[in-house]
Amino acid sequence: MLETMRESEMYKRLRTLMDEERYAHSLGVRDCAVMLAERYGADVGKARLAGLLHDCAKGLSRQEMINRAMEAGIELGPEEFQSEALLHGAVGAIIARQVFGVEDPEILSAIECHTTGKRDMALLDKIIYLADYIEPNRDFPGVEDLKQAAMEDLDKAVLMALRRTIKYVLDTDRFLHPRTVEAWNDMLKRFKSQTIDG
Amino acid sequence: MLETMRESEMYKRLRTLMDEERYAHSLGVRDCAVMLAERYGADVGKARLAGLLHDCAKGLSRQEMINRAMEAGIELGPEEFQSEALLHGAVGAIIARQVFGVEDPEILSAIECHTTGKRDMALLDKIIYLADYIEPNRDFPGVEDLKQAAMEDLDKAVLMALRRTIKYVLDTDRFLHPRTVEAWNDMLKRFKSQTIDG
Repeated sequence: MLETMRESEMYKRLRTLMDEERYAHSLGVRDCAVMLAERYGADVGKARLAGLLHDCAKGLSRQEMINRAMEAGIELGPEEFQSEALLHGAVGAIIARQVFGVEDPEILSAIECHTTGKRDMALLDKIIYLADYIEPNRDFPGVEDLKQAAMEDLDKAVLMALRRTIKYVLDTDRFLHPRTVEAWNDMLKRFKSQTIDG
Repeated sequence: MLETMRESEMYKRLRTLMDEERYAHSLGVRDCAVMLAERYGADVGKARLAGLLHDCAKGLSRQEMINRAMEAGIELGPEEFQSEALLHGAVGAIIARQVFGVEDPEILSAIECHTTGKRDMALLDKIIYLADYIEPNRDFPGVEDLKQAAMEDLDKAVLMALRRTIKYVLDTDRFLHPRTVEAWNDMLKRFKSQTIDG
């Protein structure tokens, strides 16, 4: 019962940190993450929590994010100083720990890399990365293909999502996080060896 | 006269290292590099030589490229071991020095980064990077826009070319070189501050 109460408090607290639309998105990512966790045999409870909290830092200003990151001793790259989009994952992991009491490293990792990706993404990292992309409130050309891929082949879907993210970053003249490129190269290597071996 | 002779020997030697099509491309890049050097006040002689020799390693096998790079003490990233495309610039700079006797660091740098780009690209680096893209034998959708941009705003054209390269890499499931991303972020930062200041 304690855990349920704690989770209900989380919802209240999360609601104070973001607007209605972002909150609806968070619930969508939570549900989508649960579905993917069931599909791929990940820990459903961790997926639910990581999905729910992934954007908990999104409502902060860039300066607040930078302050939080620096207080926590996180080294920021030049791209991160320029971009809330690139900051809010790392800061989200800090807030999930400090405000929501999450200590599980798998959950914190999934929150931390949910926008940028990273090298050696774990199953939960991939699930949250994709759930953020395809939750029911998302609507963009190609989302249906990505949803279908996510249910068929998780790695292939992550590659598709990374490809789309990088193209979006290029087309909108934004900074590209080195970790996103590490994620692309790493996932591509795995996918290629899978294809060759399989 | 000695210099002219030396250059005429270079042409003969270069011709033995590549097929006819690649040789025609090299002459196209040479001429285009000269034109851009005149347009932007770079050293025309260096642009000519860098343009001519930029692909001098392209005819080697991947293993030969790896051997050459390792003999020269160049540290290769995981992406480079997988890709002739990513290797031939660095190995080209080695061959330009060892076989063609080029010692000028600006020319060697331009050859070295002509495919990947890099952070802090110098004027000659940008000229060779673009000349390789838009020389008259190149034909792809958008090449005319890129040619026009190259004559109007070198940095803008480099950004356009980087954007196109990265998209091509993504669409063809290739490895993305970290230096290309460094080039994108760096050029974008310069271009944005130019736009804001200008």
